[in-house]
Amino acid sequence: MADYQAPLRDMRFILNEVFDAPALWASLPKVAENVDPETADAILEEAGKITSGVLAPLNREGDEQGCKWNDGEVTTPEGFREAYQTIVEGGWNGLGGNPEFGGMGMPKTLVAQFEEMMQAANMAFGLAPMLTAGACLALDAHGSQELKEKYLPNMYSGVWSGAMDLTEPHAGTDLGIIRTKAVPNDDGSFNVTGTKIFITWGEHDMAENIVHLVLAKLPDAPKGPKGISMFLVPKFLVNDDGSLGERNQFSCGSLEKKMGIKGSATCVMNFDGARGWLVGEENKGLAAMFTMMNYERLGVGIQGIGAAEASLQSAREYAMERIQSRAPTGAQQPEKAADPILVHPDVRRMLLTMKGYVEGGRAFSTYVAQWLDISKYSDDDDRRKHAEGMVALLTPVAKAFLTDRGLDTCIIGQQVFGGHGFIREWGQEQLVRDCRITQIYEGTNGIQALDLMGRKVVGSQGKLYELFAEDVAAFIEENSDNPFLRSYLEPLAASLERLSDVTEHVIRQASDNPDSIGAASVDYLDLFGLTALGFMWAKIVKAAAEKTEGDTSGFYTGKVKTARFYFDRMLPKTVALAEGIRSGSDSMMALTAEEF
Amino acid sequence: MADYQAPLRDMRFILNEVFDAPALWASLPKVAENVDPETADAILEEAGKITSGVLAPLNREGDEQGCKWNDGEVTTPEGFREAYQTIVEGGWNGLGGNPEFGGMGMPKTLVAQFEEMMQAANMAFGLAPMLTAGACLALDAHGSQELKEKYLPNMYSGVWSGAMDLTEPHAGTDLGIIRTKAVPNDDGSFNVTGTKIFITWGEHDMAENIVHLVLAKLPDAPKGPKGISMFLVPKFLVNDDGSLGERNQFSCGSLEKKMGIKGSATCVMNFDGARGWLVGEENKGLAAMFTMMNYERLGVGIQGIGAAEASLQSAREYAMERIQSRAPTGAQQPEKAADPILVHPDVRRMLLTMKGYVEGGRAFSTYVAQWLDISKYSDDDDRRKHAEGMVALLTPVAKAFLTDRGLDTCIIGQQVFGGHGFIREWGQEQLVRDCRITQIYEGTNGIQALDLMGRKVVGSQGKLYELFAEDVAAFIEENSDNPFLRSYLEPLAASLERLSDVTEHVIRQASDNPDSIGAASVDYLDLFGLTALGFMWAKIVKAAAEKTEGDTSGFYTGKVKTARFYFDRMLPKTVALAEGIRSGSDSMMALTAEEF
Repeated sequence: MADYQAPLRDMRFILNEVFDAPALWASLPKVAENVDPETADAILEEAGKITSGVLAPLNREGDEQGCKWNDGEVTTPEGFREAYQTIVEGGWNGLGGNPEFGGMGMPKTLVAQFEEMMQAANMAFGLAPMLTAGACLALDAHGSQELKEKYLPNMYSGVWSGAMDLTEPHAGTDLGIIRTKAVPNDDGSFNVTGTKIFITWGEHDMAENIVHLVLAKLPDAPKGPKGISMFLVPKFLVNDDGSLGERNQFSCGSLEKKMGIKGSATCVMNFDGARGWLVGEENKGLAAMFTMMNYERLGVGIQGIGAAEASLQSAREYAMERIQSRAPTGAQQPEKAADPILVHPDVRRMLLTMKGYVEGGRAFSTYVAQWLDISKYSDDDDRRKHAEGMVALLTPVAKAFLTDRGLDTCIIGQQVFGGHGFIREWGQEQLVRDCRITQIYEGTNGIQALDLMGRKVVGSQGKLYELFAEDVAAFIEENSDNPFLRSYLEPLAASLERLSDVTEHVIRQASDNPDSIGAASVDYLDLFGLTALGFMWAKIVKAAAEKTEGDTSGFYTGKVKTARFYFDRMLPKTVALAEGIRSGSDSMMALTAEEF
Repeated sequence: MADYQAPLRDMRFILNEVFDAPALWASLPKVAENVDPETADAILEEAGKITSGVLAPLNREGDEQGCKWNDGEVTTPEGFREAYQTIVEGGWNGLGGNPEFGGMGMPKTLVAQFEEMMQAANMAFGLAPMLTAGACLALDAHGSQELKEKYLPNMYSGVWSGAMDLTEPHAGTDLGIIRTKAVPNDDGSFNVTGTKIFITWGEHDMAENIVHLVLAKLPDAPKGPKGISMFLVPKFLVNDDGSLGERNQFSCGSLEKKMGIKGSATCVMNFDGARGWLVGEENKGLAAMFTMMNYERLGVGIQGIGAAEASLQSAREYAMERIQSRAPTGAQQPEKAADPILVHPDVRRMLLTMKGYVEGGRAFSTYVAQWLDISKYSDDDDRRKHAEGMVALLTPVAKAFLTDRGLDTCIIGQQVFGGHGFIREWGQEQLVRDCRITQIYEGTNGIQALDLMGRKVVGSQGKLYELFAEDVAAFIEENSDNPFLRSYLEPLAASLERLSDVTEHVIRQASDNPDSIGAASVDYLDLFGLTALGFMWAKIVKAAAEKTEGDTSGFYTGKVKTARFYFDRMLPKTVALAEGIRSGSDSMMALTAEEF
């Protein structure tokens, strides 16, 4: 298969030409302190080298070898320890981290590009820095000054890694019913006892210490989600001088055998009176977890794009090299036994669908990252509040839509290879297996859709939705005279209207019928995502169209033509989705259990 | 995970109540000789026992162990040899075989149900009987009397198995460029030399002999697909008295490491002057292969339904047992910590989508099998010809649509399990990995779509399409007074009209623009399949609706309600597909290679 090459040209196009990220960064003083366009560019360049040169070559073998468990110890696949050292030396774990504790303070718009490269190159490995960054975010936002000083610097450097311990065998989506207990000690610490499952990189041999953020219940905590607290539970206790002390009372009981991301360790963790420290307030652990969720969830969406980009690169190369049959319009390379399969309309359809999702998805993740940057760094209250609304609304779309379409894309990329796509050595099937988890973890995509439809859209009576709708409408309005954009704005406006109509419709229905939210949610999220990507493709056309004249590389003309395909072939799905949603919840709720 | 249970009630409903198969069988004298309703029922019952009791329990472990290669010998997973013996003893390999040579002569309408059970229970294993039956069909249709007498009885019994050797490393879809050579000997045999890949069950330890049907080129054969001949090449030469002679000059060079169906052997076969015998006429090997393709392709579509049914059974059970969160309308089981996830509209949406595809798909495969039976067994020329047209038209739809929706269904079934769906022990992820191959082999689904749109629809200038359209229109007409059916017939008629319009549209376009066929093909096949399943669900409603009164089991009412869901939520996709197709080929063909 093709070696993964970080798509730097595309990333620069999105950052600089579509979104003008340098202007965004300059408008946010705390960001401007740390990054300028040259620094950002150098970071992209270096990220490309490390992900393509160090992480990608370990991807296949990591999948074959997997992690090995032995008496509580976990050994990572060959090369992972050394690669992790490279990541530590480059400070990549702390790229977006708080500079006060040793982070680099880079904006999410930039970090998102690095994340995509890392996840595209090696998703199993990439989960370790991703979870560490996530744990750092939660700790930075909610931990005491003491905890932050003690843990963050070593976590940003990556010398210590992080893990998030939420799920229990009987409690996944419904964390309100977890059983792990935390009992206070006299010294302000707690003893944590319980079993957690599906703990990604909960144990391994790459870092000197592993810092777990564990959800548990205090004695006499209220029932349900409002009785959950968060605790920091390190693998090795940390002495006051920062050196490592004794081994804490918990261990990895076993590793899950799973479909994909086999190079990573998915751990059962047994806590047996392990010492931990409260992070944030008592009984507000879930809320604390949610502050980082928006970052983490976008990160999972980005995993979907990463896997899809890797699949696209291989499929494109294969389609140009594999010769088979003749073009419908007659032989294109008569000197060969057959034409490259790229001549076939249906192969083009597959590649263009992949491009439509990957490149549109990359623009969308950058769009969401832009709101994350403003919500975190703006010193203008109104601007920040507006951005927070956008983040709340768009995060579930980014997580679910980008991973659903990520899997679709990987499956198409595998299909381009025909029989070879099913064979392990070509790598396409691994991308399918790896990408599949992104639709499940960090809140299943069904839960994301409920979050969008229920909490965000209906919960705000449409106010959050309006923020997005206004942004799209403003773009359409501003560009109504742009001759390049005309044929794209009309279907975009139609799709937005469809989405707005359905939004109103569901809000109305939900006041009488609570089931109508869950009945609409997944289709609604798809309709939203397709419209959002239409918006992105219109933005891409705007940035590219005026540069097509004299473009001999095909870069800008390719973007405009791919946008055409998106509008002709992909956006029309919104029509069907809207029609389905309007049928309401009756056909779902009518069945008794026996009738299923 | 739930143990697979053959869905006998559903199969009997489809056979007896929806299609009245006994009347069909009675109308075909050669079928009526061999089967009556009681025999058919006993066969279903026994098939259910063997597939659920013998094959299903080996499925997980077969996936874990895989086949082992050692110096050309292939060892199957534990239990496979014994299970194969059970299949041989029951005569299941020859269920649909020619009675003249020891087959049981059962109609495809019945055999299809057995095939579904076998593929649902254990797809990796099921490929062995499936390929043997396929090889028998080709041999029975094209072999000399001598070859048939010598090989068929032992293949129908299963003492010998069959394999199909088509693909070469550089030639998959495009068999016209194969390089394997066959050189005539003086005794009427040929020496076959070349390398074949992706040969399912090309070597194994379950049968005494393996009979390969190999595509190869004679010296001075014309270039391309019209220069291909088919040869029977047995692993062990067969003496005149029927006993096994010396080992033939070919061997299995290696096994592929693949995504799924890991319990099966996917072989590289090296032929080194192996002795073979011509089957059918010189240079007409591809045509000979195609006569069995219709059976084989329906069989692959049935694999898709099988995997999907297995996934549905597990998902349904899990949704009833797993408790998590509360129903939107308030606690349904307040005495428990949470409600079963079946209360959630989105979980119902997932299960109903699965049922829509699986049960509608089973009806459709039986519908196609009915045309296969008529085309093979009717002694009325017109009736046979009509059925042949239906088979030609519907086979690519059955293969591609049922496997595409099979994968979709398995992915949904995995999603119902949340994180547990990604873990191997629950079995859902294996169904996804296994089912994935069905979209690729036996002609990729893209190729099926080209076959439908190009050869069948445009190639006949719509005449073949009319056969199907008339059947649907006649049903609508006949039942226009049926009060149960009214709300289903209207959307069905609209969908048919959409399909007919698009059909005309593409036929018109294709006369000027050959690319318009490939630009429309995959979306057209989806549109066709969705409409066909709408037709099936209308037939199901017709059979079920009048029995709903007093139905305390929920069986018939469940069918009618699931049909409602199909029409409300699934059929509307046809609108978007039609719109996409109408945009033509421009947006696909506009890009240069660099622009991709």
